Amino acid sequence: MKQSLVIVKVGGKIVEQPETLERLLKDFKAIPGAKLLVHGGGRSATAMASRLGIESKMVDGRRITDADMLDVVTMVYGGLVNKNIVAKLQAEGINAIGLTGTDCNVMQSDKRPVKDIDYGFVGDVKAVNAEFLASLIEKGIVPVLAPLTHDGKGQLLNTNADTIAGEAAKALASYFKVTLIFCFEKPGVLLHEDDDNSVIPYISYYDFPRLVQDGTISGGMIPKIQNAFNALQAGVSSVLITKAESLDKLTGTTIAL
Amino acid sequence: MKQSLVIVKVGGKIVEQPETLERLLKDFKAIPGAKLLVHGGGRSATAMASRLGIESKMVDGRRITDADMLDVVTMVYGGLVNKNIVAKLQAEGINAIGLTGTDCNVMQSDKRPVKDIDYGFVGDVKAVNAEFLASLIEKGIVPVLAPLTHDGKGQLLNTNADTIAGEAAKALASYFKVTLIFCFEKPGVLLHEDDDNSVIPYISYYDFPRLVQDGTISGGMIPKIQNAFNALQAGVSSVLITKAESLDKLTGTTIAL
Repeated sequence: MKQSLVIVKVGGKIVEQPETLERLLKDFKAIPGAKLLVHGGGRSATAMASRLGIESKMVDGRRITDADMLDVVTMVYGGLVNKNIVAKLQAEGINAIGLTGTDCNVMQSDKRPVKDIDYGFVGDVKAVNAEFLASLIEKGIVPVLAPLTHDGKGQLLNTNADTIAGEAAKALASYFKVTLIFCFEKPGVLLHEDDDNSVIPYISYYDFPRLVQDGTISGGMIPKIQNAFNALQAGVSSVLITKAESLDKLTGTTIAL
Repeated sequence: MKQSLVIVKVGGKIVEQPETLERLLKDFKAIPGAKLLVHGGGRSATAMASRLGIESKMVDGRRITDADMLDVVTMVYGGLVNKNIVAKLQAEGINAIGLTGTDCNVMQSDKRPVKDIDYGFVGDVKAVNAEFLASLIEKGIVPVLAPLTHDGKGQLLNTNADTIAGEAAKALASYFKVTLIFCFEKPGVLLHEDDDNSVIPYISYYDFPRLVQDGTISGGMIPKIQNAFNALQAGVSSVLITKAESLDKLTGTTIAL
């Protein structure tokens, strides 16, 4: 039987505030067995860009990454956010290692082709070095992945953290029984947007189109759930959408085929 | 017989300019066998700090690292400089991995005690996870170390890159036959400061005090050579002080016991 692996993706808001980060890392530590953490950092990147006089351009919640902005996200995601998380995990006795996609070629991508929108230095993942990640995990090491990839030709590329988590989960599914957890601001997918008590406990592949059509699921939640289904179809055992603060209880919305 | 390992330390100037970096990485690639790279990045950190309105304070060429400056060096050394080097090495077919001291606890340090000067968040190395570095190197992976360490209690610390290189060399000397190369602006230690043709080919432990006393060796070169002797005394096989542009020829000043 395969060993269990829990992959947790946390967004910027949680990892960028000392108090919420501390709570998150303690909850993360409490998850038994093998683990992998994927983090964002968008708010810090936007704040740092603003301090440097670089304008943050977003289209449908996706960042346009020109050369200056790529430097900012490389500094913030790969340096500031990643290394502080790793140092704090080490302090908790977790042997973490911070990685971007270029380190040991962990995640290679293609620069997104320009269609209607030029996203700039943004990468769509094409290959994961699951063997290397698995070799670390099997040694008890906890990889902490920053949302950066590379094209194999020397170019770093900004990559959506949900995608990083989904691709890592899919690639590692041949080595481990993978549970993929997406943490965000709400305790799960909500039936009524403003009611945190209206968490939908279970969304199946069959329910999904209907929930999109009736407007229950909208905006950034659509690609997040789509990502979840892709991961399940590629062999990931289960996907949970929850709130970072509920990570200790593992409640939320379970996505299932 | 132990496998050979070449550890190259390059300063900021070389890695911060695209042309000199490209040349360096090609020369680095040409070195046969197992390799490890340690980089600086001080000029970029100073420039980034200035853009952010943070003043760079130096005492005897050493940076005073307050909390804001620590964030800058974490971004610049751990993110911008480190990940760009790794991406470019990957493009050259070298399976590089970028690491700071906190990643897999590669290098742990103590915050420097305040005596005459408060250096702030600066670490003096106390332990190297040579076993992990050796396990990577034995797999053909090339570690690229940024000059950052941690105290094991969640605090990142700025650490001199020469020291990182020296400590890595000493710790790895029990696994490999280590050659340690310090690259700087001059082709070696010069007999006459302004004459690049006056490289002293060989400095022994016996010669060193005399060369310091007569003023031939002064300033930042003194701790660099002291570092070299420390490394040799701890089992490093040879130390070379050279210019990055001479890395392909491996000429320069050899330091010997």
